[in-house]
Amino acid sequence: MIIIGGSASNGIDERIAKILNLKLVKVEHKIFPDGESYIRIPESINSENVAIVQSTYYPQDKHLMELFLIAEAAKNLGASKIIAVIPYLAYARQDRRFKDGEALSLKTVLNLIYYSGIDEILTVEPHKQDALISYFKGEVKIVDPTPALANEVKKEVEYPFVLAPDRGALDRAERLSKELNAPFSFIEKERDRTTGEVRIKEIPKDVEIKGKDVVLIDDIISTGGTLAQAAKVAYDLGARKVIAAASHVLLVNNALQKLQSAGIKCIIGTNSIRTEDNIKVADISEVIAVKL
Amino acid sequence: MIIIGGSASNGIDERIAKILNLKLVKVEHKIFPDGESYIRIPESINSENVAIVQSTYYPQDKHLMELFLIAEAAKNLGASKIIAVIPYLAYARQDRRFKDGEALSLKTVLNLIYYSGIDEILTVEPHKQDALISYFKGEVKIVDPTPALANEVKKEVEYPFVLAPDRGALDRAERLSKELNAPFSFIEKERDRTTGEVRIKEIPKDVEIKGKDVVLIDDIISTGGTLAQAAKVAYDLGARKVIAAASHVLLVNNALQKLQSAGIKCIIGTNSIRTEDNIKVADISEVIAVKL
Repeated sequence: MIIIGGSASNGIDERIAKILNLKLVKVEHKIFPDGESYIRIPESINSENVAIVQSTYYPQDKHLMELFLIAEAAKNLGASKIIAVIPYLAYARQDRRFKDGEALSLKTVLNLIYYSGIDEILTVEPHKQDALISYFKGEVKIVDPTPALANEVKKEVEYPFVLAPDRGALDRAERLSKELNAPFSFIEKERDRTTGEVRIKEIPKDVEIKGKDVVLIDDIISTGGTLAQAAKVAYDLGARKVIAAASHVLLVNNALQKLQSAGIKCIIGTNSIRTEDNIKVADISEVIAVKL
Repeated sequence: MIIIGGSASNGIDERIAKILNLKLVKVEHKIFPDGESYIRIPESINSENVAIVQSTYYPQDKHLMELFLIAEAAKNLGASKIIAVIPYLAYARQDRRFKDGEALSLKTVLNLIYYSGIDEILTVEPHKQDALISYFKGEVKIVDPTPALANEVKKEVEYPFVLAPDRGALDRAERLSKELNAPFSFIEKERDRTTGEVRIKEIPKDVEIKGKDVVLIDDIISTGGTLAQAAKVAYDLGARKVIAAASHVLLVNNALQKLQSAGIKCIIGTNSIRTEDNIKVADISEVIAVKL
């Protein structure tokens, strides 16, 4: 197998190639003056399997298009099986039609990936695993980043307590709590039917957060609203310190400031996304390489 | 048939609907805080044919992705045949592999368009018509914008002479000269094999440009280099005035300034692209509507 490093591989391509002792080919990449992408694979591929490493963080559409172009070039060079290693998969949250007439964006993107010649997707903790598997016509492998995140979390906490900001993140919290050998729970939320506002309904009664180092865990940190709210709950319950960990740290708008204002002392993400300086980054190359 | 107006329809959707007296549905469109596109078609489509109007000028990848999303939504609403009216088709100039290992971007894009559920493409003077037709698995209709451009050119010239800046634009020049009832010719160029520089080789001997209003014609004005060079040739041959007309006026980097410095008095484009203020715009809705 050959590893092909795309324009948004964020260093993961090099690390995987090293771990697995595979040949790495870096894609030649430029932007034409009019804004179109140019892609070239500068080496031959003789009926070999290839793994294209290309994340699809912002600008998502550009990074997706480059992935499609790399796949076309690889196929033309005679690649046998094409695996796309997409640490962060764009459009994963538009996984159903909330209103009639909406585009089902995740399905559209997965369809385009398949028809660009990609046989298998390997991605890191997508928003809804079932949706991804049902919409993609090829094979899907899901990587759990929890071991990598746990390594970084351990450096920041003494008496950890893992808290999921909502029921959806409960499974994630349980996985992290096992790695940390720590207790876990979740916050129950309810949505006001008239205002649409989300309020904390309750957290389970047997939870003892007082004096603990609370680790909030989620799949994606986007605008930071959910975690900022959860941090306040944790401090109200007597938390000594609150930190946040997530597979994909997008931090859009003023998310970082919002999280810091809520008293979150440290944010841990992975290199699925090119993050800002203030984020501690857990390297997921190892957990990806094991699955490849 | 229903006309569906995309986010980059540039007003052509409304005009076509009016000309053909068809129902127009404007796509609901927004950008999520993280940069992903949201698309919704806010009306039902009951086994009707639809024509999605969406140009793919800069940012090309975003506009392409929106086209794919609109097609998915239209198909899901029960659209029968889906026609994509793409006045300017991105990636049309990457129509072959100039070096081994390059992505054949035009083929990739046409493949994605087809597999997003689009049965037919209607586009305005693509860079290489044959390449488009051979790479797209569905039907292709090509619209000639010359009549629309000629209407605008007529307003700017008294003694027109149509000049193609290279042999590739000769057919285009001939079409425009017929509309204007004017003579035409072309400039022969040669590329220096060591420096890669392009020089004017000759222009045919029987050409009398002296005192004429030269109309330079091309399919795309990108960086403006070709036309600036051609304008100098025209003035050297005694042209009274030089103007430029093109199907797709991209004007990247300092192209406008370059063209003005070369003495080009007026630039005429079409609404296939959202252009700057200094460009005279020929409306291609009519020539598109006739072909639809």
